[in-house]
Amino acid sequence: MRYADDAQPVLTLTSGPVNAYPDVLRGLGRTVLYDYDPAFQAFYEKVVEKAQKAMRLSTKPVILHGEPVLGLEAAAASLITPDDTVLNLASGVYGKGFGYWAKRYSPNLVELVTAYNEALDPQAVREMLVKHPEVTVVSVCHHDTPSGTINPIDEIGKIVAEHGGYLIVDAVSSFGGMKTHPEDCSADIYITGPNKCLGAPPGLTMAGISDRAWAKMKANPAAPRASMLSILDWEKAWSRSEPFPFTPSVAEMNGLDVALDLYLGEGPENVWARHALTAKAMRAGVRAMGLDIWPAREAIASPTTTAVRIPEGIDEAKLRKEVRARYGVVFSSGRGETLGKLTRIGHMGPTAQPIYAVAALAALGGALNALGFEADTAAGVAASVAAIDADA
Amino acid sequence: MRYADDAQPVLTLTSGPVNAYPDVLRGLGRTVLYDYDPAFQAFYEKVVEKAQKAMRLSTKPVILHGEPVLGLEAAAASLITPDDTVLNLASGVYGKGFGYWAKRYSPNLVELVTAYNEALDPQAVREMLVKHPEVTVVSVCHHDTPSGTINPIDEIGKIVAEHGGYLIVDAVSSFGGMKTHPEDCSADIYITGPNKCLGAPPGLTMAGISDRAWAKMKANPAAPRASMLSILDWEKAWSRSEPFPFTPSVAEMNGLDVALDLYLGEGPENVWARHALTAKAMRAGVRAMGLDIWPAREAIASPTTTAVRIPEGIDEAKLRKEVRARYGVVFSSGRGETLGKLTRIGHMGPTAQPIYAVAALAALGGALNALGFEADTAAGVAASVAAIDADA
Amino acid sequence: MRYADDAQPVLTLTSGPVNAYPDVLRGLGRTVLYDYDPAFQAFYEKVVEKAQKAMRLSTKPVILHGEPVLGLEAAAASLITPDDTVLNLASGVYGKGFGYWAKRYSPNLVELVTAYNEALDPQAVREMLVKHPEVTVVSVCHHDTPSGTINPIDEIGKIVAEHGGYLIVDAVSSFGGMKTHPEDCSADIYITGPNKCLGAPPGLTMAGISDRAWAKMKANPAAPRASMLSILDWEKAWSRSEPFPFTPSVAEMNGLDVALDLYLGEGPENVWARHALTAKAMRAGVRAMGLDIWPAREAIASPTTTAVRIPEGIDEAKLRKEVRARYGVVFSSGRGETLGKLTRIGHMGPTAQPIYAVAALAALGGALNALGFEADTAAGVAASVAAIDADA
Amino acid sequence: MRYADDAQPVLTLTSGPVNAYPDVLRGLGRTVLYDYDPAFQAFYEKVVEKAQKAMRLSTKPVILHGEPVLGLEAAAASLITPDDTVLNLASGVYGKGFGYWAKRYSPNLVELVTAYNEALDPQAVREMLVKHPEVTVVSVCHHDTPSGTINPIDEIGKIVAEHGGYLIVDAVSSFGGMKTHPEDCSADIYITGPNKCLGAPPGLTMAGISDRAWAKMKANPAAPRASMLSILDWEKAWSRSEPFPFTPSVAEMNGLDVALDLYLGEGPENVWARHALTAKAMRAGVRAMGLDIWPAREAIASPTTTAVRIPEGIDEAKLRKEVRARYGVVFSSGRGETLGKLTRIGHMGPTAQPIYAVAALAALGGALNALGFEADTAAGVAASVAAIDADA
Repeated sequence: MRYADDAQPVLTLTSGPVNAYPDVLRGLGRTVLYDYDPAFQAFYEKVVEKAQKAMRLSTKPVILHGEPVLGLEAAAASLITPDDTVLNLASGVYGKGFGYWAKRYSPNLVELVTAYNEALDPQAVREMLVKHPEVTVVSVCHHDTPSGTINPIDEIGKIVAEHGGYLIVDAVSSFGGMKTHPEDCSADIYITGPNKCLGAPPGLTMAGISDRAWAKMKANPAAPRASMLSILDWEKAWSRSEPFPFTPSVAEMNGLDVALDLYLGEGPENVWARHALTAKAMRAGVRAMGLDIWPAREAIASPTTTAVRIPEGIDEAKLRKEVRARYGVVFSSGRGETLGKLTRIGHMGPTAQPIYAVAALAALGGALNALGFEADTAAGVAASVAAIDADA
Repeated sequence: MRYADDAQPVLTLTSGPVNAYPDVLRGLGRTVLYDYDPAFQAFYEKVVEKAQKAMRLSTKPVILHGEPVLGLEAAAASLITPDDTVLNLASGVYGKGFGYWAKRYSPNLVELVTAYNEALDPQAVREMLVKHPEVTVVSVCHHDTPSGTINPIDEIGKIVAEHGGYLIVDAVSSFGGMKTHPEDCSADIYITGPNKCLGAPPGLTMAGISDRAWAKMKANPAAPRASMLSILDWEKAWSRSEPFPFTPSVAEMNGLDVALDLYLGEGPENVWARHALTAKAMRAGVRAMGLDIWPAREAIASPTTTAVRIPEGIDEAKLRKEVRARYGVVFSSGRGETLGKLTRIGHMGPTAQPIYAVAALAALGGALNALGFEADTAAGVAASVAAIDADA
Repeated sequence: MRYADDAQPVLTLTSGPVNAYPDVLRGLGRTVLYDYDPAFQAFYEKVVEKAQKAMRLSTKPVILHGEPVLGLEAAAASLITPDDTVLNLASGVYGKGFGYWAKRYSPNLVELVTAYNEALDPQAVREMLVKHPEVTVVSVCHHDTPSGTINPIDEIGKIVAEHGGYLIVDAVSSFGGMKTHPEDCSADIYITGPNKCLGAPPGLTMAGISDRAWAKMKANPAAPRASMLSILDWEKAWSRSEPFPFTPSVAEMNGLDVALDLYLGEGPENVWARHALTAKAMRAGVRAMGLDIWPAREAIASPTTTAVRIPEGIDEAKLRKEVRARYGVVFSSGRGETLGKLTRIGHMGPTAQPIYAVAALAALGGALNALGFEADTAAGVAASVAAIDADA
Repeated sequence: MRYADDAQPVLTLTSGPVNAYPDVLRGLGRTVLYDYDPAFQAFYEKVVEKAQKAMRLSTKPVILHGEPVLGLEAAAASLITPDDTVLNLASGVYGKGFGYWAKRYSPNLVELVTAYNEALDPQAVREMLVKHPEVTVVSVCHHDTPSGTINPIDEIGKIVAEHGGYLIVDAVSSFGGMKTHPEDCSADIYITGPNKCLGAPPGLTMAGISDRAWAKMKANPAAPRASMLSILDWEKAWSRSEPFPFTPSVAEMNGLDVALDLYLGEGPENVWARHALTAKAMRAGVRAMGLDIWPAREAIASPTTTAVRIPEGIDEAKLRKEVRARYGVVFSSGRGETLGKLTRIGHMGPTAQPIYAVAALAALGGALNALGFEADTAAGVAASVAAIDADA
């Protein structure tokens, strides 16, 4: 028995999109209200307030109506001007990628790049800022998903704040799965979305914007306005008494509303603990199986995605193909420089359940064995269960 | 981290109800049509035709609007008269239980009872019928769920047919998960439902009725009529041009429609193979873990539920409690005589996926260890994965 | 353009089933939990508590897992013994029908029957009881749906209580759409369900049972036990610490939970007002159109269904056929003695919206005209809108 | 009884978003697959093929992952260069609005503007092109929704093609509700979406792109690339063997799939007829009621939205407020120059049902009367029903 390519898999354990929570899936099917209907406008305001609570913001966050790459591009387009010097901090493919957007809006770009299995060193950031006092904007990716590594953004944020720079944070695949909030890291623009750890489908951006970021964007004549790329257009849109610049994605808002209720209802600390334990069970199993994680150190490994270093001689694409065909389980590949070198096993939102780590490890081990690598599946699963039990 | 009792579990791996297929869950939410609306009457007829196709019947099956215990009680009430002598064949709690209903309608009851970890022997049935030529009705449970054992109903059916008796078959938890159809076993009344291997919620009975069973029921003045317990009332209800005796369960019919589409679309043989492989992976793991299955022999073990014999000294209720609290996984207990002696792990419909056997074994092993029994979880999972791989 | 018979209609304005509230439809698709799972047992208890609140009961109601005809049959089977004398009060087809069930359980039946467009007179009930002091059980249908008439059950209940008899009330199509509760009418068994004014699909019975009814049923050796027809089996099933006699209809319970939340959340008084105003707008329009309602007096006309007397020479079946084909609107016919004489336009749950009365009247008028009866559709709709406006 | 502002209305009869078809609402809740999963890639290709069939295109359409304003902005940004001269044809607020986007990408803009209750005259377009032989790009809005008027784009397209210009068509609120397809009007970029007449929620753009438009965009170095505004990035994304430039909106695709099945299943001609008849019933009623439609002539009135001219002295915002409060019905206002002068009553997708025209007219008439304008609601409804009956 093999799962056909065009048949639905059993478990989607990817770095996102993951399947949404069942309650969110049903929430998507709520009645579609007219965007000018007072009932919808009141609803929209309430959802923004829930997002504000979840993001622990003192100001209203902005919802943009495209998945978080829209938010990242819009942040670059709105905040960065040719007068700015941008310091882009990169520890992986996504962090590095933001530099290209930054460069589109200012020719003045400096970068601090670490190995792609490492995290950024706050001290190195401090030194870079001393060396480049002209830096006005700093950008950083919190969880560089293609590496499965976490950067210390709260520390970095403090340093950037001391320097006086504006900070753009990509927290797309970390927010909701671990302790991170815009104001914890003094972010000026903090981009995340419902489609990773909140367990909703892709289609929206949630952005935390500082007062001074609003001011800088307003002062930027080139900041997108009357555009899909605009953040400014949406400044007041949260209010039930203001019109929307264009029709918001009503169904996605319905889904986000449920996702936020679930997150706040379960308790953020409990949600984070669930992600952390699943990741711990994954890592314990990976190592006991005779493999290694991609991140250089356990301390920088993501709680929402475990990147597994692929042994020499194993074709990573074939490995995932075999995992899916034999067990109906879907993993993610690397991206760019990490493509082929690692497999990513996501544990986000509804898939952040320790028992799924066990299933993932069994599938990983079985497929590796099928491809000729002797993984000790038995030891891997046992170590994984032991990690779960240690927390029971 | 422990899953709270009143929080939803991650995986419901019970002997039913299991969670429904996602498509069925959404199907339940289709528009509720008026039962006299021609669109609903046409729909109802089509669903019955799909059920007929799935059950491989040459006549129209009957849908009753209560879960299959309704069908079983209605079968006894409708078919059995005080003039009948009933031979009740029992290899477990459910088979034995039918005798009580039989007795309600006829004082003449003989029984053939085997050990509750064994299956009925067709030869013994033949001998019993020779010894009791007065037997007119034979009743048998195909899959005695509280034991996880399968009876050879196709062979038994042949013997009963030769004898000339009416055969009542309870195939509630086997149909849809293995090769079994009313006419394969010459059943006169064959009761099953959507809530086990078809992956729909409990609330309906599907019954295959032979022509001579219809005749016998019509001739029985005590057969329920104008009653919830009636089968006769529903004889023509499948037809779009006939009224319903009372309002059918519209939402359950909507769900059944999707469940039948899924079953016929995936291909019954493929569905059975999925159940069989999951069961095989379960049994391989159970044994490698140092445990045993409850059924006396592999050959009689159910492909839809694996009953695991609980080691001496282990409190079975505590075991399931621990499995749920630690891993969010739900199993079933035994029933009656088997209560406390075995744990049942279901693999029915959407849960009949081999990778779930791996998860179930890890959870079972982890919880046993927590209770002081040294289960070799590692070996169990490895054997389970190997069983899956042997079929890849 | 004509709506095809097998295509879904636009508006189902029947006397039930009506389409469910959208939120209920989505609720039906919640995860199906195992009935022995503590999360399900806790959920079930909570739903029963919500039902208790909605029914304003001082004791726990019973949920039976079949549509309300199950509840009515079970009530007769459980409460009535051959030693009882039953007084069946009938003002229509449904009330009359209960007599047949009563007769099944006791040979001693007396009846008080009014014209089928009239309501029962409490004074006549009192006289009947004086004349028949041997009466121990009284049965009455609150809203005789095939007539669209309401009986004064609170007054009748008081009289029966003074007499000392047990009272069985069928409030299936009135509860939730007007002020009526089991203890308001001193009912001993009060049967209703989610599938009419609560806006959920058919498949469950909600029953209010008095303490003395429990006692009488327990003392009745013939009361169904270990049966689909049993009420007794379910006495303690509401409690999270008690098992279910058989698997409850999980999806229907999920739907009922939402329906009760909607009812209690909107506020029962508001829900009743919505039903009452829709009925008022219907009746005003019917009369202005040159037609008449079936009930003899406005005061006894149902707030949940308007029965329209069909003019001489009009074929009622053809009329409904034309209403559906031209406008996509579905009405109900009469039943038994009222079949062909009236058309029923339901306004229950989600269809109890005054604007639907306008749509119904336009469709009714248009189709009548098409069949040759000169209905004044314009005047009908204007009167209907005026009735709505009088309450704005 | 008045409907509260923050309570859901009964009927959303707006010019979009309208409520989605129930089947689409449930479709939104399908399992969210990983965008790199072969099952999702195969699904995406199939949906694009269905969109191609619905749009009657000889090439693959592009799906962009934002509501159609994204498509319109992206079309301007991708196709128009500073070397182009754009002729913007405007008969209303939306057509006029496109000129601002055109101007952003080329300083060379000429416009042909008609009165906002009129349609464009093909002959005038021809003359304009003769006068401006330098025109390389022509833009036109098919259904200028804020006026409820339809432009003759098939004739205009022929003229533009003869001239050799590129044609950009905004068919957002007409496609799916009347006969219009990209190749019928020789459009080079034809923008529409699922959120109007296809009855799905807002969140996607469907774009038909001609081969020569692809060539022009590729030759434009300023055409957005690696951007949310890019069309080019998505050229090959329909293919199951190509990656997506960023994560598509999975749930919206699930909804679109169902919407296309419904459209193709019902038959486009039948869907258009349903829209046309609803519009006809609306217009007949409006006039009989003593009001007038906004469009100068019946022939240019939209079949998907009826714009009603508001009588002198009536506050249009108050009118809609009253319609919603009294009857639970939601209409749309005008926009820009038409704001306050007209009310728009939409009949799109699931709301394009003639009986809803009757309900809309009754609500409109009732509210006008409440505000002191004597509308003849009775005559309006009668005329509307007569229009429906004329087609029965």
